[in-house]
Amino acid sequence: MDNLCHPKDGASTKTGSSTSFDSATLSMLNEVHSLICQAALCEGTDRQNKVLEFKHPQQLKELLELHISDDAASKEDIMEICKKVIKYSVKTAHPYWCNQLYTGVDPYSLAASWITEALNTNQHTYEAAPVFSLVEQHMIQKMCSLVEFDDGDGMFFPGGTMGNMVGIHLARYHYDNNIKKSGMFTNQPLVIFTSQEGHYSIKTAANLLGFGLDNVVAVKTDGIGCILIQDLEEKVQLCLKENRIPCVLVATSGSTVLGAYDPLDECAVVCKKYGMWMHVDAAWGGGALVSKKHTHLCKGIKEADSVVWCLHKMLGVQLQCSAMLVKKKGFLLECNSLKADYLYQKDKFYDTSYDYGDMSIQCGRKADGFKSWLMWKAHGDLGMEARVDSAFSLARYMEERLKATEGFRLVLPDFQCTNVCFWYIPPRLRGQTESEEWWLEINQIAPRIKQCMMEEGSMMIGYQPLHCHGWKNFFRIIIANPLLTTSDIDYVISHIHDKGKDL
Amino acid sequence: MDNLCHPKDGASTKTGSSTSFDSATLSMLNEVHSLICQAALCEGTDRQNKVLEFKHPQQLKELLELHISDDAASKEDIMEICKKVIKYSVKTAHPYWCNQLYTGVDPYSLAASWITEALNTNQHTYEAAPVFSLVEQHMIQKMCSLVEFDDGDGMFFPGGTMGNMVGIHLARYHYDNNIKKSGMFTNQPLVIFTSQEGHYSIKTAANLLGFGLDNVVAVKTDGIGCILIQDLEEKVQLCLKENRIPCVLVATSGSTVLGAYDPLDECAVVCKKYGMWMHVDAAWGGGALVSKKHTHLCKGIKEADSVVWCLHKMLGVQLQCSAMLVKKKGFLLECNSLKADYLYQKDKFYDTSYDYGDMSIQCGRKADGFKSWLMWKAHGDLGMEARVDSAFSLARYMEERLKATEGFRLVLPDFQCTNVCFWYIPPRLRGQTESEEWWLEINQIAPRIKQCMMEEGSMMIGYQPLHCHGWKNFFRIIIANPLLTTSDIDYVISHIHDKGKDL
Repeated sequence: MDNLCHPKDGASTKTGSSTSFDSATLSMLNEVHSLICQAALCEGTDRQNKVLEFKHPQQLKELLELHISDDAASKEDIMEICKKVIKYSVKTAHPYWCNQLYTGVDPYSLAASWITEALNTNQHTYEAAPVFSLVEQHMIQKMCSLVEFDDGDGMFFPGGTMGNMVGIHLARYHYDNNIKKSGMFTNQPLVIFTSQEGHYSIKTAANLLGFGLDNVVAVKTDGIGCILIQDLEEKVQLCLKENRIPCVLVATSGSTVLGAYDPLDECAVVCKKYGMWMHVDAAWGGGALVSKKHTHLCKGIKEADSVVWCLHKMLGVQLQCSAMLVKKKGFLLECNSLKADYLYQKDKFYDTSYDYGDMSIQCGRKADGFKSWLMWKAHGDLGMEARVDSAFSLARYMEERLKATEGFRLVLPDFQCTNVCFWYIPPRLRGQTESEEWWLEINQIAPRIKQCMMEEGSMMIGYQPLHCHGWKNFFRIIIANPLLTTSDIDYVISHIHDKGKDL
Repeated sequence: MDNLCHPKDGASTKTGSSTSFDSATLSMLNEVHSLICQAALCEGTDRQNKVLEFKHPQQLKELLELHISDDAASKEDIMEICKKVIKYSVKTAHPYWCNQLYTGVDPYSLAASWITEALNTNQHTYEAAPVFSLVEQHMIQKMCSLVEFDDGDGMFFPGGTMGNMVGIHLARYHYDNNIKKSGMFTNQPLVIFTSQEGHYSIKTAANLLGFGLDNVVAVKTDGIGCILIQDLEEKVQLCLKENRIPCVLVATSGSTVLGAYDPLDECAVVCKKYGMWMHVDAAWGGGALVSKKHTHLCKGIKEADSVVWCLHKMLGVQLQCSAMLVKKKGFLLECNSLKADYLYQKDKFYDTSYDYGDMSIQCGRKADGFKSWLMWKAHGDLGMEARVDSAFSLARYMEERLKATEGFRLVLPDFQCTNVCFWYIPPRLRGQTESEEWWLEINQIAPRIKQCMMEEGSMMIGYQPLHCHGWKNFFRIIIANPLLTTSDIDYVISHIHDKGKDL
């Protein structure tokens, strides 16, 4: 047996280079940082520059030189690659990226995400992530108080879809907690109700969780996209007649296309009557909760059993930052806990109730909460409120402008959220009988304008049909980027006309 | 109706400040970058510094000043907060962080993650993420070729747990694709087989996917932690007798605690015989695939139907980077596709087969593949191989040192992977009868040494019991940080002795 040396000062036997971050490595990181600041942030948000430099997949493959060889690339090669990656990536912080529910880059949230990456933390346990565990729960409690969950808890998940899945999973456990043990093989079919305009993640959940797509019942909506309570109740009753169990209603606060807010108070009455779990998908529209002026849109959210709210959408936190809030404290843990021996040991010397990971359906988790906390600290409650209020007022401005501008037709007379949906009608199609053929022509206008905008890199705005209302392709612009001004809105309108007038 | 102006040069109406990244903002980002380089990267990997500055949750809450106020924080406040966050966070890149299956910060992967964050990209569609879509699929094809899936595909998911879930989900769809439509309410119970030492994510999947924990059958392992084929086959047959359906075997390449590799060739024979899907959880041990010397550990992996491999574990890519590889091209898409109208429009002007998001169970997704591609480019295939070979040889060195050092006892005579598991026996407990009481004393040694190490911030090494073998708490060190040297290993051994010798 060898003898061990027992130094009083353990440090004396610590050897090896003192750090892996030598000056060449640090200089590479500095260079990347400068490149990011210049090319991605400054140039990438400058209106004079393109939103994207579009290339078709085959062209871009060649430009990127994807192949990895046996040998290391030089530092110069790596810098060239980084430049190309930024050049050909879409600038989602650019004011004319209005394509999806996320937009903009907040510098404080970005700073937080860089720190998170450098610390490369996995937020499963307090021992691995002491700061981030506390920060996450602080944010969760802040959000619980905004939805008036007096004794709630929750955590972050990677994306609203995951959050909606967990909401439905909790609903199932609430209906029959034996499913955790025995599975759902002997259950009568369990049914998920949601608006016909609800997000497709509800179907994803039905597929993954074993409910099946047939057990997602789409409830009709009214003329502005809100769930019809009468149709909900009729469908619940029909379901009961068919010996299927109404398990959960997923109500929506801010639907993906129209931005509609379901009437949560009325939803809650139906849920209570039939013993259904009420989950609110406030992934997009939850942002209204920080605004005294707009929080009424979510009225009744306190009646929910669980809520998903993505801070990376309207509030502009870095992707991804999706909070799952649960009214009944401890329920998420009870539903998901598996007490893995190698992570959640109970013989640790600190208070292991801070090892939050056992509440999750993930094992490894990114420290998403921190990105929202630092940003929120930096702007304060009032700053976050102002951001939301400004987006809403700009959306109302755009509505007014569209109403007043020839060739544009709003899909709805008014919108509840900061989505604005509209058709552009080129001069040659104006003033005609709106026959089926006419609509088929209109159906091609938005895709063609979008193609044109993407090819020249000028702007990105989403379009889609909405079959449940029989509507052909229309534009849906999302107003959330804090850089947007009324002049930008004027420009967007004139630009669409410019690209579409000869179609 | 207003008249639209139709400028020839649309840019003439672009107004507003040219960028949101003014000099004050850029200076804040520069300061944060410098702080990261100094405090998190250089000081955080210096052996003379602590791995962590431990504080109990209540103390840390006070130090962090978590409260968010109405008003914005000053730039100075934000910098102070960032300093504190780094100070009190665990330095997972430090060579003496050997606590989990992830460790180290690769500077190129870090650079990639910073770029990803600055671009704030959501990788659902090619139009939003052209570069990252191509890069992801290039990496997936590279990994498919390493597991010899000649015509496979796949994608990244946020963590190995998600990957294992998707593997089991594919298995279920393979068994009965009608479950996507109708759910699993009328099915006979579907059973998941996995090693008794398999990762707990299999149970998480059973819970979330509606199989139930009773339908996870734990297969016995041999003396070194590999699945016993005879026990597997007996349990499959028992299951059939009980009218339960053997649906999927989750074999493990590199188990969490012992680092055991299941015999995949033999597993495949049983799977074929009973028509079971074979999923391989190579989250941890998949790293061996890049090494000519160690790839044999995964022999037979090409027989699998799906494989999960986390590049953020042995290969040291930034968290999270978990690839799901599927042998049958198109199967993942078929299983998950929901063709959401607002994202996956088929009337786009580019080849929409590059809109990979419809294969996922997420909607929004981070651009995880890029972090692995840039790192791999920077080091080359040979560099990645050297990294893995070095970790393996250092683990073998540690085994030899532990065998030769009084007071240490290896849990196994040899280890397959770079996990090394051992008990430390303090002098007062040496040479005694190893009764139940004696083992109960040993059971407390690792937690107490770990407490001591965490309180002084010197080192972090995981410990756990392994009930299926009747083993009380033992240390499991993970050798994967490229900074580790043989001197470090010597120091680790002497440090544990130093902390434990008087217990």
